[in-house]
Amino acid sequence: PQQGPLDITTEFGRLYVKPNEICVIPQGIRFSVALEGPSRGYILEVYDGHFRLPDLGPIGANGLANPRDFLTPTAHFEDRSVDGYRIVSKFQGALFVATQNHSPFDVVGWHGNYVPYKYDLARFMVINSVSFDHCDPSIFTVLTCPSNRPGTAIADFVVFPPRWSVQEHTFRPPYYHRNCMSEFMGLIFGRYEAKEGGFLPGGASLHSMMTPHGPDHRCFEGASNAELKPERIADGTQAFMFESSLSMAVTRWGEETCQKLDARYYECWQALEKHFHL
Amino acid sequence: PQQGPLDITTEFGRLYVKPNEICVIPQGIRFSVALEGPSRGYILEVYDGHFRLPDLGPIGANGLANPRDFLTPTAHFEDRSVDGYRIVSKFQGALFVATQNHSPFDVVGWHGNYVPYKYDLARFMVINSVSFDHCDPSIFTVLTCPSNRPGTAIADFVVFPPRWSVQEHTFRPPYYHRNCMSEFMGLIFGRYEAKEGGFLPGGASLHSMMTPHGPDHRCFEGASNAELKPERIADGTQAFMFESSLSMAVTRWGEETCQKLDARYYECWQALEKHFHL
Amino acid sequence: PQQGPLDITTEFGRLYVKPNEICVIPQGIRFSVALEGPSRGYILEVYDGHFRLPDLGPIGANGLANPRDFLTPTAHFEDRSVDGYRIVSKFQGALFVATQNHSPFDVVGWHGNYVPYKYDLARFMVINSVSFDHCDPSIFTVLTCPSNRPGTAIADFVVFPPRWSVQEHTFRPPYYHRNCMSEFMGLIFGRYEAKEGGFLPGGASLHSMMTPHGPDHRCFEGASNAELKPERIADGTQAFMFESSLSMAVTRWGEETCQKLDARYYECWQALEKHFHL
Amino acid sequence: PQQGPLDITTEFGRLYVKPNEICVIPQGIRFSVALEGPSRGYILEVYDGHFRLPDLGPIGANGLANPRDFLTPTAHFEDRSVDGYRIVSKFQGALFVATQNHSPFDVVGWHGNYVPYKYDLARFMVINSVSFDHCDPSIFTVLTCPSNRPGTAIADFVVFPPRWSVQEHTFRPPYYHRNCMSEFMGLIFGRYEAKEGGFLPGGASLHSMMTPHGPDHRCFEGASNAELKPERIADGTQAFMFESSLSMAVTRWGEETCQKLDARYYECWQALEKHFHL
Amino acid sequence: PQQGPLDITTEFGRLYVKPNEICVIPQGIRFSVALEGPSRGYILEVYDGHFRLPDLGPIGANGLANPRDFLTPTAHFEDRSVDGYRIVSKFQGALFVATQNHSPFDVVGWHGNYVPYKYDLARFMVINSVSFDHCDPSIFTVLTCPSNRPGTAIADFVVFPPRWSVQEHTFRPPYYHRNCMSEFMGLIFGRYEAKEGGFLPGGASLHSMMTPHGPDHRCFEGASNAELKPERIADGTQAFMFESSLSMAVTRWGEETCQKLDARYYECWQALEKHFHL
Amino acid sequence: PQQGPLDITTEFGRLYVKPNEICVIPQGIRFSVALEGPSRGYILEVYDGHFRLPDLGPIGANGLANPRDFLTPTAHFEDRSVDGYRIVSKFQGALFVATQNHSPFDVVGWHGNYVPYKYDLARFMVINSVSFDHCDPSIFTVLTCPSNRPGTAIADFVVFPPRWSVQEHTFRPPYYHRNCMSEFMGLIFGRYEAKEGGFLPGGASLHSMMTPHGPDHRCFEGASNAELKPERIADGTQAFMFESSLSMAVTRWGEETCQKLDARYYECWQALEKHFHL
Repeated sequence: PQQGPLDITTEFGRLYVKPNEICVIPQGIRFSVALEGPSRGYILEVYDGHFRLPDLGPIGANGLANPRDFLTPTAHFEDRSVDGYRIVSKFQGALFVATQNHSPFDVVGWHGNYVPYKYDLARFMVINSVSFDHCDPSIFTVLTCPSNRPGTAIADFVVFPPRWSVQEHTFRPPYYHRNCMSEFMGLIFGRYEAKEGGFLPGGASLHSMMTPHGPDHRCFEGASNAELKPERIADGTQAFMFESSLSMAVTRWGEETCQKLDARYYECWQALEKHFHL
Repeated sequence: PQQGPLDITTEFGRLYVKPNEICVIPQGIRFSVALEGPSRGYILEVYDGHFRLPDLGPIGANGLANPRDFLTPTAHFEDRSVDGYRIVSKFQGALFVATQNHSPFDVVGWHGNYVPYKYDLARFMVINSVSFDHCDPSIFTVLTCPSNRPGTAIADFVVFPPRWSVQEHTFRPPYYHRNCMSEFMGLIFGRYEAKEGGFLPGGASLHSMMTPHGPDHRCFEGASNAELKPERIADGTQAFMFESSLSMAVTRWGEETCQKLDARYYECWQALEKHFHL
Repeated sequence: PQQGPLDITTEFGRLYVKPNEICVIPQGIRFSVALEGPSRGYILEVYDGHFRLPDLGPIGANGLANPRDFLTPTAHFEDRSVDGYRIVSKFQGALFVATQNHSPFDVVGWHGNYVPYKYDLARFMVINSVSFDHCDPSIFTVLTCPSNRPGTAIADFVVFPPRWSVQEHTFRPPYYHRNCMSEFMGLIFGRYEAKEGGFLPGGASLHSMMTPHGPDHRCFEGASNAELKPERIADGTQAFMFESSLSMAVTRWGEETCQKLDARYYECWQALEKHFHL
Repeated sequence: PQQGPLDITTEFGRLYVKPNEICVIPQGIRFSVALEGPSRGYILEVYDGHFRLPDLGPIGANGLANPRDFLTPTAHFEDRSVDGYRIVSKFQGALFVATQNHSPFDVVGWHGNYVPYKYDLARFMVINSVSFDHCDPSIFTVLTCPSNRPGTAIADFVVFPPRWSVQEHTFRPPYYHRNCMSEFMGLIFGRYEAKEGGFLPGGASLHSMMTPHGPDHRCFEGASNAELKPERIADGTQAFMFESSLSMAVTRWGEETCQKLDARYYECWQALEKHFHL
Repeated sequence: PQQGPLDITTEFGRLYVKPNEICVIPQGIRFSVALEGPSRGYILEVYDGHFRLPDLGPIGANGLANPRDFLTPTAHFEDRSVDGYRIVSKFQGALFVATQNHSPFDVVGWHGNYVPYKYDLARFMVINSVSFDHCDPSIFTVLTCPSNRPGTAIADFVVFPPRWSVQEHTFRPPYYHRNCMSEFMGLIFGRYEAKEGGFLPGGASLHSMMTPHGPDHRCFEGASNAELKPERIADGTQAFMFESSLSMAVTRWGEETCQKLDARYYECWQALEKHFHL
Repeated sequence: PQQGPLDITTEFGRLYVKPNEICVIPQGIRFSVALEGPSRGYILEVYDGHFRLPDLGPIGANGLANPRDFLTPTAHFEDRSVDGYRIVSKFQGALFVATQNHSPFDVVGWHGNYVPYKYDLARFMVINSVSFDHCDPSIFTVLTCPSNRPGTAIADFVVFPPRWSVQEHTFRPPYYHRNCMSEFMGLIFGRYEAKEGGFLPGGASLHSMMTPHGPDHRCFEGASNAELKPERIADGTQAFMFESSLSMAVTRWGEETCQKLDARYYECWQALEKHFHL
């Protein structure tokens, strides 16, 4: 959720998920979502595999998202007769409806590990360079859904939380790059450093694989000339990224109907100057 | 080397190694070391496997010690007749001497990757928590010699270089712990934060596996009461650790003959107070 | 084959396959099937990978289907001129016909392990709980065709042979569940315990992934109230399952033309009663 | 424990372990054991690796020892001053004593997974052949401590609990064999089917690797001539095995001092007759 | 290139590639190709994974294509203003054009290993049987792009260079076979032994998976009756194969428009005689 | 066997093994060896793991030692009463004797794959460079007993059979080297090219790990000046190597008692000349 909490009921119990928390519901689990007012957020559906914590490598035994901060529902059930309870299932890309005369949330208890869970992004232990240079954004990975090709993800969920930025002799914002992953970014609240205009909470940007991108001109000039002392960044901000080795298509609604596409996005780089001085 | 540079000649060429640089010479390579004055340093010999860079996990494609900063010798040879050139080899724990009438460094050129190399520790890209909490020291790994048990090293070489320390709500020095590895620490120059007295450049400490240890009382009190703002630590200092899943024995010379053992080491923790207040 | 034997000729020799035997013919091998009368059976075609025995884990060195019970043809050939011998090949989903003037079964001998084979299902060593609780049906796996995702099969071939059922404090029939695999069941002979009516030899049921299912009302009541002493089950019966991580589509013929779809299948669960007593 | 419960205090909390329960304490954890009377039991110390549940292979998602039945201590601490509290540590095969003035069990809370735990052997879900033939005893594995050679264990802990025995056309007791593992058997209570005389609760047998062994003559004759109907076996009995790919030495105390060695063990097989009838 | 050199400019520098050299450009790299006259060659595009050297198995540490023979560009840049510089990108199967006012080859330097490279096929160390029998053509692999299924390649690039042929008691040309890979062959120069007529430099043959094929009648008779002494083969010839576990479709241009399809290809096998003599 | 055949009886049946055949008997199997006259040979005992065929890498599906050429005994038994039949077992480095009153070879039949086998070295399909350069001797591997460190063998069994040698621009005999393996060579019959004098059938040489070695002076001069045309080598010769990542000790008998040590071995290299010409 980016705006308004979600009151989620599942067969395994209930999850109350507020903005800056995320919720993962595994495939095949019945759930319903109740709202308390206007609501908006981001959804990512993966069609293969499951999300898990990344292997930490030399980060060692703890760091990034810690297992103990993922919360699962406690047992909860309702024994409720309902005339024409409708259950909507997605199967092979189509929606099917079944009707029954009782609540599906009549599951008394459970054990196992195939359960919905939530996580508060504020609990993410941010790790980064404390000397110089720029880490690969994978260092911000919260959860990864690995593909069958080792080292390649169907989807990574990555966050850019409040943190200290202390690298010396370094251009600190995201660098200019193109790569083999699709990058879908969203903003839960605050202002994203690499593009302050036009990227608002609830909005999104998509940089498809091998498409070059990087910070806007204003950010480039600022970061290139800033004195590099310790600096808090992203305080009051929560940006995130869905990164995938697959290509993400934009629906007709997203591309046309909604009239929200920023046709002048490319202009944020137009003012960048050539720096060859022969 | 901790004091004085090493002028190393190998069959693959020459390496000039100064303090704060490290040098790795693989098994079976002929070498000789020339000195320019008083010399002192630390040696680690592994009897199985080879050192390599650690897998980086979510750190991604770059970080810690970068491959491009490891330097190998360029080709060099000498065609020199020597009466009674002595070559000392270590084989199955014993030293053998062979005598020949020419320099062994008559190797004209080479290709391959089984070569000696050196690395300047100042080039290590230090990564650490930029939010809160304490990373496992494995995050400081320069090189690892993995054992056959996945996740366990015959030896890790770990450094604690100058860096920013910015974690909030955190006890920033090394925590109190015991673990399954033997920890041999040395100091190349400067002062090590967790034990300022008694741990001098050229000295060493050994905490064997499952032996509890941690910072001295002075460090504990200081860090427990400090205001947690961004702070440069270890400037002008280079401490390191040889960490092994094997137990390291101390020789009779080290334990007795040299008269350098700090018999009062344990006293650095004696002043630590109980904090139970019922 | 479910009814009538198959007299199969392949380039590697001949296989005479009777009901309760299965036959696997690898991709790309020429074969022809001769019948002795009315014939009916089940076919499963996999488009990637090959069937193999499952790893046995703690079951140890022997159990389930044993390697020695798989029979391959002995060498056999025919030197036969045939006017217009037609060979039908399936390539990229289409059928192609080639005509030649001699039998393709003119292969004199062979060695290797890429061969057709057959297996008598009566030789399956059934393993199951001999204390309490219900094993995952994977414990009945005869052959598995693994996918690239470890732990997930393109197809498992699973049988439910005659065996002892001795679990105490346990609901012994298949439990109610939904899961990530498609389950296609067939019956070679006899009566399947979890649905005695409507599921006949030569028939089939399909429970697609994440679709809840379980035993019918009659079976549920019976098993819930039975005295749990040792009991032979499935004597004279051979049910099996093709289980796949992929979704299986039903052809128009299967869904409509054949007029064999059991439109009232769901009714077998209608009599199940609510057991909440507050 | 085989006789009398153990009241174990560890840094992670307390474990009350009764006969037919097992307790695992990982390396390096401080613990003390209080007794309530005469006490006897079996201890297995592994010098490498850790115990874990075996991979289940086709047994599937549940079976044998289920994760949910392993119990860890809840947090517990004592703030207790003790004059001369002695802590005994084992390091590189020798015992060391340290003295301190307070209880080491002053650990207030914990999280993580490197903890002591206990397990009630009665919760083991026994799986075995329900058709014919004899499963490898690995099917009784509770916990395994894998070695670096895949498929080979430093130690397996295996139990033979009360269960149904229903195999037809089969010699049901353990078969005669020799193999690459050392087998140390013990008996917690009851009578072990394959050797009723001489193998008493609290006793033990050791069959070293590649040493042939099997049931005694009485068991062989009985099982060879018994009618093979469903039969409860091992009711009121709990035998177990420590199985290792390493060789286990017997101490001088065990071999001589205790005067408990059964010098006539081999006689249990002397009465076995030749069955060649030409 | 099969005819005429390629003068390739990339963001990483320049590569001058002559016939009998190959060039690999990774996904997402900008490049342009300049010609010096008539030019013709073969292109293989893989949509997943990257090419790498095959694991060598018992071939050991060196052999086939050696790492040191792969050449990468040295740094090169141009600071050039261009009115309407067009960059063509392929994305999800469609071509897109972007226009800019400067050369994209303004990259001053680089480090890393994701770079274009070239390789001279004459440097391939050919390994083969020096006793008897016929090796699998995989022994000629230059580069492989592995798929997610171990042992199966998205594409192998295989060459048949000049070499000695010395096998005794062996039919030396490629044998008759069908297999699970698609085989696309091309000829850079010279004459291919297994089909001298109709397979010319710049031409190609495609044998789709599971389609039987082998040498033509002339080659079969010649090799079946030849005296088997050491013989140079393929001198002055360079044939190659793209081998893939995927099926390769032929475009309408290739199949019809170009009028180059050899409709009588099958006739090269028609003269093969039956060798059954009863 | 190097001289005289071995008539081996095992629990699995009989193996008649002649010189140029090898025999492998797995750990723990009872066997006896009968001779027909003077007998001599080489024995290698491995204390961990088992021999298997090497993975073939790009050599593909066939080559080197082919599985079909390994022969196992057919079932054989003897029902023979023997007074005081002595069985000698090796256990933890010591020999133990058991006495019984019947032949241990009373095993009627068997199935499985843990069996003794033999292999005729003349069936080895020799593969090597057919262009230029020198292959790693691993390309001659018949069987390997892998260690737990991937890529490193407890023991490789390697042969140098009759074959064609055709490499151009290459020094064809073994090159001068030192490496991480111990090399024990033996000669079954014929003359070994790299050292014709002093290395006789039934003899052996040992080059321990990291000890430099290579062909003698005569071989060096000959091969350096020979015209490089196709040449049969090793006809009428069968040399082999036991190569191990472990160090092999020589017994006192081998080093002193037997008086067979060639104290002047090093002289074979003395005549090698310096080739620096400045």
